[in-house]
Amino acid sequence: MSIGEMMAVGGSKAFALTDIGTGIERYKAVRAFTDKLCAPLTIEDYVVQSMPDASPIKWHISHVSWFFETFILAEKDKSYEPIDNQYAYLFNSYYVSAGERYTRADRGKISRPTVAEAKEYRAHVDRHMLNFLEGLSEAEWAELQPLLDIGLHHEQQHQELMMTDLKHMLSFNPLHPVYVEAPVKGSNGGVPAHEWIAYDEGIYEIGHKGEGDFFYDNEGPRHRVFLEPFALGSRLITNGEYLEFMEDGGYEKQLLWLSEGWYMAQNEGWQAPMYWAKENGRWHQHTLNGWREVDMKAPVSHVSYFEADAYARWAGGRLPTEAEWEVAATPLPIRGNFVESGHYHPVPLSGEAAKDKPAQMYGDVWEWTQSHYSPYPGYQPAPGAIGEYNGKFMSNQFVLRGGSCATSLTHIRPTYRNFFPTSARWQFMGFRLAKDLR
Amino acid sequence: MSIGEMMAVGGSKAFALTDIGTGIERYKAVRAFTDKLCAPLTIEDYVVQSMPDASPIKWHISHVSWFFETFILAEKDKSYEPIDNQYAYLFNSYYVSAGERYTRADRGKISRPTVAEAKEYRAHVDRHMLNFLEGLSEAEWAELQPLLDIGLHHEQQHQELMMTDLKHMLSFNPLHPVYVEAPVKGSNGGVPAHEWIAYDEGIYEIGHKGEGDFFYDNEGPRHRVFLEPFALGSRLITNGEYLEFMEDGGYEKQLLWLSEGWYMAQNEGWQAPMYWAKENGRWHQHTLNGWREVDMKAPVSHVSYFEADAYARWAGGRLPTEAEWEVAATPLPIRGNFVESGHYHPVPLSGEAAKDKPAQMYGDVWEWTQSHYSPYPGYQPAPGAIGEYNGKFMSNQFVLRGGSCATSLTHIRPTYRNFFPTSARWQFMGFRLAKDLR
Amino acid sequence: MSIGEMMAVGGSKAFALTDIGTGIERYKAVRAFTDKLCAPLTIEDYVVQSMPDASPIKWHISHVSWFFETFILAEKDKSYEPIDNQYAYLFNSYYVSAGERYTRADRGKISRPTVAEAKEYRAHVDRHMLNFLEGLSEAEWAELQPLLDIGLHHEQQHQELMMTDLKHMLSFNPLHPVYVEAPVKGSNGGVPAHEWIAYDEGIYEIGHKGEGDFFYDNEGPRHRVFLEPFALGSRLITNGEYLEFMEDGGYEKQLLWLSEGWYMAQNEGWQAPMYWAKENGRWHQHTLNGWREVDMKAPVSHVSYFEADAYARWAGGRLPTEAEWEVAATPLPIRGNFVESGHYHPVPLSGEAAKDKPAQMYGDVWEWTQSHYSPYPGYQPAPGAIGEYNGKFMSNQFVLRGGSCATSLTHIRPTYRNFFPTSARWQFMGFRLAKDLR
Amino acid sequence: MSIGEMMAVGGSKAFALTDIGTGIERYKAVRAFTDKLCAPLTIEDYVVQSMPDASPIKWHISHVSWFFETFILAEKDKSYEPIDNQYAYLFNSYYVSAGERYTRADRGKISRPTVAEAKEYRAHVDRHMLNFLEGLSEAEWAELQPLLDIGLHHEQQHQELMMTDLKHMLSFNPLHPVYVEAPVKGSNGGVPAHEWIAYDEGIYEIGHKGEGDFFYDNEGPRHRVFLEPFALGSRLITNGEYLEFMEDGGYEKQLLWLSEGWYMAQNEGWQAPMYWAKENGRWHQHTLNGWREVDMKAPVSHVSYFEADAYARWAGGRLPTEAEWEVAATPLPIRGNFVESGHYHPVPLSGEAAKDKPAQMYGDVWEWTQSHYSPYPGYQPAPGAIGEYNGKFMSNQFVLRGGSCATSLTHIRPTYRNFFPTSARWQFMGFRLAKDLR
Repeated sequence: MSIGEMMAVGGSKAFALTDIGTGIERYKAVRAFTDKLCAPLTIEDYVVQSMPDASPIKWHISHVSWFFETFILAEKDKSYEPIDNQYAYLFNSYYVSAGERYTRADRGKISRPTVAEAKEYRAHVDRHMLNFLEGLSEAEWAELQPLLDIGLHHEQQHQELMMTDLKHMLSFNPLHPVYVEAPVKGSNGGVPAHEWIAYDEGIYEIGHKGEGDFFYDNEGPRHRVFLEPFALGSRLITNGEYLEFMEDGGYEKQLLWLSEGWYMAQNEGWQAPMYWAKENGRWHQHTLNGWREVDMKAPVSHVSYFEADAYARWAGGRLPTEAEWEVAATPLPIRGNFVESGHYHPVPLSGEAAKDKPAQMYGDVWEWTQSHYSPYPGYQPAPGAIGEYNGKFMSNQFVLRGGSCATSLTHIRPTYRNFFPTSARWQFMGFRLAKDLR
Repeated sequence: MSIGEMMAVGGSKAFALTDIGTGIERYKAVRAFTDKLCAPLTIEDYVVQSMPDASPIKWHISHVSWFFETFILAEKDKSYEPIDNQYAYLFNSYYVSAGERYTRADRGKISRPTVAEAKEYRAHVDRHMLNFLEGLSEAEWAELQPLLDIGLHHEQQHQELMMTDLKHMLSFNPLHPVYVEAPVKGSNGGVPAHEWIAYDEGIYEIGHKGEGDFFYDNEGPRHRVFLEPFALGSRLITNGEYLEFMEDGGYEKQLLWLSEGWYMAQNEGWQAPMYWAKENGRWHQHTLNGWREVDMKAPVSHVSYFEADAYARWAGGRLPTEAEWEVAATPLPIRGNFVESGHYHPVPLSGEAAKDKPAQMYGDVWEWTQSHYSPYPGYQPAPGAIGEYNGKFMSNQFVLRGGSCATSLTHIRPTYRNFFPTSARWQFMGFRLAKDLR
Repeated sequence: MSIGEMMAVGGSKAFALTDIGTGIERYKAVRAFTDKLCAPLTIEDYVVQSMPDASPIKWHISHVSWFFETFILAEKDKSYEPIDNQYAYLFNSYYVSAGERYTRADRGKISRPTVAEAKEYRAHVDRHMLNFLEGLSEAEWAELQPLLDIGLHHEQQHQELMMTDLKHMLSFNPLHPVYVEAPVKGSNGGVPAHEWIAYDEGIYEIGHKGEGDFFYDNEGPRHRVFLEPFALGSRLITNGEYLEFMEDGGYEKQLLWLSEGWYMAQNEGWQAPMYWAKENGRWHQHTLNGWREVDMKAPVSHVSYFEADAYARWAGGRLPTEAEWEVAATPLPIRGNFVESGHYHPVPLSGEAAKDKPAQMYGDVWEWTQSHYSPYPGYQPAPGAIGEYNGKFMSNQFVLRGGSCATSLTHIRPTYRNFFPTSARWQFMGFRLAKDLR
Repeated sequence: MSIGEMMAVGGSKAFALTDIGTGIERYKAVRAFTDKLCAPLTIEDYVVQSMPDASPIKWHISHVSWFFETFILAEKDKSYEPIDNQYAYLFNSYYVSAGERYTRADRGKISRPTVAEAKEYRAHVDRHMLNFLEGLSEAEWAELQPLLDIGLHHEQQHQELMMTDLKHMLSFNPLHPVYVEAPVKGSNGGVPAHEWIAYDEGIYEIGHKGEGDFFYDNEGPRHRVFLEPFALGSRLITNGEYLEFMEDGGYEKQLLWLSEGWYMAQNEGWQAPMYWAKENGRWHQHTLNGWREVDMKAPVSHVSYFEADAYARWAGGRLPTEAEWEVAATPLPIRGNFVESGHYHPVPLSGEAAKDKPAQMYGDVWEWTQSHYSPYPGYQPAPGAIGEYNGKFMSNQFVLRGGSCATSLTHIRPTYRNFFPTSARWQFMGFRLAKDLR
């Protein structure tokens, strides 16, 4: 199935790995999409690490292969021989149980293996993986399927990080390199008015029900929450609206800010979203499509939790909780501007917004919620090294929901919990408003 | 009413400022208690700031006076003349609306005003406050009462900080100075066994109901939460139990720790609770009663969120949420080891624990919860400068409940939300376990 | 002999400790002068440490007593009993051979021993020292005399540091406390014109000859240097001249600066000498006499090596080498504005400058030289712990010469080598120009 | 003339740019040698910056071209068109007069221009340079020759930095990549005994005489110094000798160290020279020829000033001054292990050392001197941007002499002053001893 077909079908449900054949197709498709994203890159683009939080592309494409090698081939395929025994050390990220790790902040100090060698590593893993998958019995497949699934979703997560890390790296370059020339989609006419969609108080169920499609351990268990009555903004906040906040002195009014956010904004000299700068009196921004004037109708992106929170206070609202967001998102079809669209940038909402349901819930930008990333009641990490995937990060990070223009359509779910520290800006991060109805 | 009488009566309800006379008595009592806490100090003890998070005692006793001066005398008493116009700058803490502030980390660089001058400042404010209060009409009193109440609770908070900041400062001194010689209470016999108290699932109301006694804005509004079935530990975790964790290699087992906590423990070299050190092969600790061997029956204290969380994982439990804690605490009488006891240190639980309700919920140590310090649904900060009291700190801090041996009995409530960053250890911080019952 | 008499006599030669009686008188005089400098202080002033490079006054007065206790009483006086065994740990500074040391940056975190206890410690040491000195035989005296001498000069160095550390500490106080009210001496009429005093090329001897008066090991051995012909400025650079540099954009012209200095100036935001600030459009400065308008005729002070060097480049000159300075200074009488004058601040040069010899070579401000603080040919540190006094600091520090308004007249010599890092500004540091004559 | 011929002839004198033809040949030879050094590299090797003090190879090869473009082509060749106007910004290093600069620490964050583009930039500059040089009149040549000369020596300096920065970068790689396989030369038999070569006291002339061959401004003016009698070690200190210091607890004996060096060694965890690590109980080191056991006969390298100084104190000697070194080196032929030898590593001294003159004065390792990098009497920086080359670094750096195994034979002179901070270790830095003879 091609990427185009994926978009046409929509929803991650279509990709349940129901049998070996589907699993192999899915494996090929996800791996091929990594190659597609890399196609426009020079060799030099693969090497650079522009900050400790980001990784070189070469590391990303190797690390996702390491995952299959370590958790599937090395564990299950007795005939498997590593291409280089040191790779397991170089390309482990944080899995303590899987052995020692090369220091994260030093990933950009490694010129070898070369990009060609990293690609050969990928090919080596692919050859063995496909050979291995093809030889599985039904019973073996049933046991393996969850691991393959997590490996593929893991690679999709890194596909998104590749885009955001690449964007960060290119932003340091005064030559304004362009990742792809594809034009950012403009809007026809105005942005639909911002409305409030009301939700009743009550006991709701949230979290993944724990069967069917793939999900991460942190999405469950499904459980009940009581929500007081609330309303959600009908769409994302736009660059134009955010500019009003800026022009009203939003970055200078301490009382709008969380205390910690204020000091961070002062220390970092924040005066606008990340990647924005004025040129000839007009706001421009660094995008994966090059250096462009800011489209005031597009959703604002690359703002920290603190900026989103300050805007909300300025606008008389607040950020939604993750439970509120999930209650609103669950009934909606998973449609939006995902990485498959080829924009690699948020696009304006066009047409009329439906009055009774929020728009732009999926894609474009991850939406900051006011919810700290905490375990759900009854949460248990998956056993073994896989269990280190999510639970160990449950302090001082906040939940973001809905996926972005760098997320794969086949990767997102209503229950999906992304999480980043309050200071993070380099992901495609935006927000919508909420308010209390009591 | 004397401090002793306060203890006899119990509960903060007794101190509702129902009329001017009660208000004046209460003002005198709280101010006098600050003096009582300062009585054992040398002049030099008032001056030192041992870290940016702590403040000199001289600053504390002045800042609480500044609060009355700024929010009551300067606003309401037209005849009031400040003793020194610069004090408002020196003793403001973080109230942006109240004007510029002297840098927090530099508070210990100020030798003048002297301690005698700071005490004269207190006396000056007291003379004017009492004079002003005595001249109020009933209507004026009704308007003023909430401000006076918050000022008195504010002073009580600083009384607690005085004890913890003093303890921190004295810990740097190899002469092991003693704040007071009063013996720490030992235990008779063993500590009651650790039991699980079960609570049913259901919709509960938590938060302050918004009338009657004093409360901070962050305690409300009262609202509904749904809790899945859970159990709470019947008592606090003891030093002895924590030592088992240490001796089982708790500080070396990375998989027990939140990722952030692990790196902090490594960087800071944590191997035991703060203030612990081995002497002649036995664990000792710095206390306000001097350098003492650790009492294994007393509740563990001076542990960070990360250490509490790691212990809980090691023990197969988790930390409670603040809602769980409040549901369990609300029906219980507010009794325990508070600052009025004169121990200034947690004491062992004695007697038999009741099977049906948790012990040590109040006093001894603030209990870490797994709840991030977030606004309740419908939360609105109080208007004006007072509104900066709580809401601006709602990021990357966690809620602690129940008060400690440095808290005033008349200051605590079931709905009281204390909050500190996950790394904080210098407060009297301990914990109890919880677990899911599904 | 009174302090006044000291000034009348002049020169350190008068204080050679020729016999026990002189030694005792000198001991009393130096110790009494420490007390005199402390007389205006509040107890609180003794406690604060305003930066790691500075120490609390309480530490200074105790450390100088520790020196006598450790190197004389503990070594030579068998009857001596320490007042507290922990003091040796608390008041050691960097003498590795003399045992463990309390961390320098934590000296301000110690409220006890109290000031009264520190003074009792001084008195205890004085009683034993005087008793011990009085009982010495001539032979014992001959052996002891060098140690006593170094102990007294050591105390004089700390007297100077007490003044500069106190000044630094008081500078943080917006109340502008005054150490002493004594008026800074103004100038009558203009400052004598800046002239060049020429010196011939040739082989010169510099360094202490190693006999007679007291000297530090780093002043010797006396040795020969060849100097190319040079000229020295006839006086110190004034505040007014330095202001011209500032107003000519001196702090903005990168080409005037050493590379390291430029980045430091940018990072620290240097725009003027330390302690200067504009008030109502006029330059003021923090002094030990309070907050005052800058006297443009007085020598500039509190500038780093980098600022002195940049000024010199701007003015078309350079800083002198220490050999050049010493050659010029040696024939001159040791007169000037020392600590005994009671100004505690540089004063303007008055009268006419003699054409044939430089003025202000002694006192007012330490003069930056362009000489790195390196060992002289044949340098050997003194044996034992005393040998740690000077040699271990011979990297990345520069030599300053001539003493300041905080130095004792009886402490300075033409061969005296003071040294500080290029970034230091809190001492009374100024400079004069030199130039090549080839 | 080939590189081999260069080595046969020896001395930089042979390369005086006496006429246009020689100049063109020399230009081609130096530029070609850069290419030769790059030949073993992968594209990825060009991109990485492993610390702020080091630069990517891509930057080095572009920056040296920028130098010719900026100071020759853009100034003198009216027909010249830059290949990209942004390169001047990207490849400037610290020349303020030559315009804005891209931040040094961010050089490794730039993936574009690609290596191929950087090489095209080099070719572009070469084409124009050669065309321009060929068209010069004799008068124009006479004017241009000094600039060409400095440009070529500048490129040679960067050739050395390329080797040391590359070595640093490869050291982070656990795969132990090899730059070239060429075997490090071993020694036949033992190392000649360490002897002392004596030198008389007297007035010596040092510094470049200012005519004839190329020299940097900081090497002059020639001037007189008086030296007390001294002796110089007959050869470099070896790895074996340094290991004795280590095994005698050199890194644990605080009294051997400069104070600053001690704290640096503690903070950085220094226990051996940079790049050393024990493997199977034997000391190995990272070299450009791969991971190898340490040759105990070869000169020690990659030690800081502090380590060299501590060793000297342990051995009862001291480091030489730069004047002492120059006096000893001037009469000697410039022979040794330079970059042209292809070892890229220090080699053992073989044969018998002559009793009357020191060996290994040139090549192998830069020799730390105890001389701070200060201006000579009468020093004036060259006018214009070229004047920023040397003078602005004259603070807190120390002089190293003699060139290393990464230096070009045609680049070194007896008067050549290299300089680095006391903490630097990543250059090929070693030392010899000196002592006083009085």
